[in-house]
Amino acid sequence: MSSTLGVKALVFDVFGTVVDWRGSITREARTLGAKIGAKLNPGKFANDWRGGYAPAMDRVRKGELPWMNIDQLHRLILDELFIKYKISNLPELEKDQFNRAWHRLKPWPDSVRGLKKLKTKYTISTLSNGNFSLLNNMAKNAGLPWDCIISAELFAHYKPDRETYLGAANLLGLEPEEVMLCAAHKDDLLHAQACGLKTAFITRPKEFSPNVKVDLTNDGRFDFHATDILDLANQLTHA
Amino acid sequence: MSSTLGVKALVFDVFGTVVDWRGSITREARTLGAKIGAKLNPGKFANDWRGGYAPAMDRVRKGELPWMNIDQLHRLILDELFIKYKISNLPELEKDQFNRAWHRLKPWPDSVRGLKKLKTKYTISTLSNGNFSLLNNMAKNAGLPWDCIISAELFAHYKPDRETYLGAANLLGLEPEEVMLCAAHKDDLLHAQACGLKTAFITRPKEFSPNVKVDLTNDGRFDFHATDILDLANQLTHA
Repeated sequence: MSSTLGVKALVFDVFGTVVDWRGSITREARTLGAKIGAKLNPGKFANDWRGGYAPAMDRVRKGELPWMNIDQLHRLILDELFIKYKISNLPELEKDQFNRAWHRLKPWPDSVRGLKKLKTKYTISTLSNGNFSLLNNMAKNAGLPWDCIISAELFAHYKPDRETYLGAANLLGLEPEEVMLCAAHKDDLLHAQACGLKTAFITRPKEFSPNVKVDLTNDGRFDFHATDILDLANQLTHA
Repeated sequence: MSSTLGVKALVFDVFGTVVDWRGSITREARTLGAKIGAKLNPGKFANDWRGGYAPAMDRVRKGELPWMNIDQLHRLILDELFIKYKISNLPELEKDQFNRAWHRLKPWPDSVRGLKKLKTKYTISTLSNGNFSLLNNMAKNAGLPWDCIISAELFAHYKPDRETYLGAANLLGLEPEEVMLCAAHKDDLLHAQACGLKTAFITRPKEFSPNVKVDLTNDGRFDFHATDILDLANQLTHA
């Protein structure tokens, strides 16, 4: 067990790490565009929607907005996109339904199998900025076999606030070093590491559009470097 | 679907409803007694430990104690019992290990099968005063297939405070009437009902010692009346 570093629980970033937000949102945007006869580039629409996400969370983190969960922030951004894309006649029910596209994101091909394997040896949980119901609905839709759902919503703090990483360890009844964040984003991992968590970098070269260069280098800063969740499972369960 | 009343999530009381606390704690107390050569009646010890639980929570609910989770309250009660039972020479590590007997409670024979069946149609979650890590560890030990863990600890309020029932619905993104509390205790169900939740009464005649008479009557106040979780699953999945 020494090579697994005393880790007892694995907590996962979700958007991009476990599920392919861009592919899923692009498909839903294409369907919407066709249905209402709107001319929109669905891949660009997906990037625009996701692009509003970090700035919106930052406004909450800085106190410019009161606590709002991700469903609410996604809707704020979406309403602005509807104006930008000149989509004006969608009924409220359909707007709400479309906003919940994030509850229906599809996993990367390795995610379910990798998580099932990891679950035999570790507690596996989300540690996502997505709200609790979003993460729960996504898990039901996609068959993600979490032991439990941990969301930034439980702490009223978004990653990378320390309250999220330390709050997850505390809820799990573990020391920070007994918890490992698994994520496709180095900034998330570095913040977790600063709180004492172990870290596993999972490369997801296709998270963004083909034109966006993603930093996939193994620069030795993290405890594990894996090409996907199944690879991580193989490394951890053979360790 | 009309006979399932529009319910989308089932939230379960755990101690007594899903797991047999008395049988489990009695076994652990017997083992401890034999190991340290203490004369104790293990069934009475279990009842005494559990007996301290509601008063301790009430002290938190009334503000006489600061927020403390159930692991902490169980330990407070246990330290008093060690004095009462004249057990004085247990090392701290063993005390802590014994206190976590509540993380190792065994399910009733129908629980796992019933929950697996219900999970195919509903979100299934805990809604327990047990702390998050206790419930998560218990699920891992016992194979309870929860979709997510909801604990009073998330709200810093114990049942029957309204914050717990309404907080669970809110986290799940549902209206109170879309959530059903499933419990073996009528008082818990009545409080949930007052908050607008649906209710399922699950009879557990053997929760307490054989001398304690449990109210098992179907008095028509609850939406469902089931003899165990498998019976509830049969009623709900055939509905």
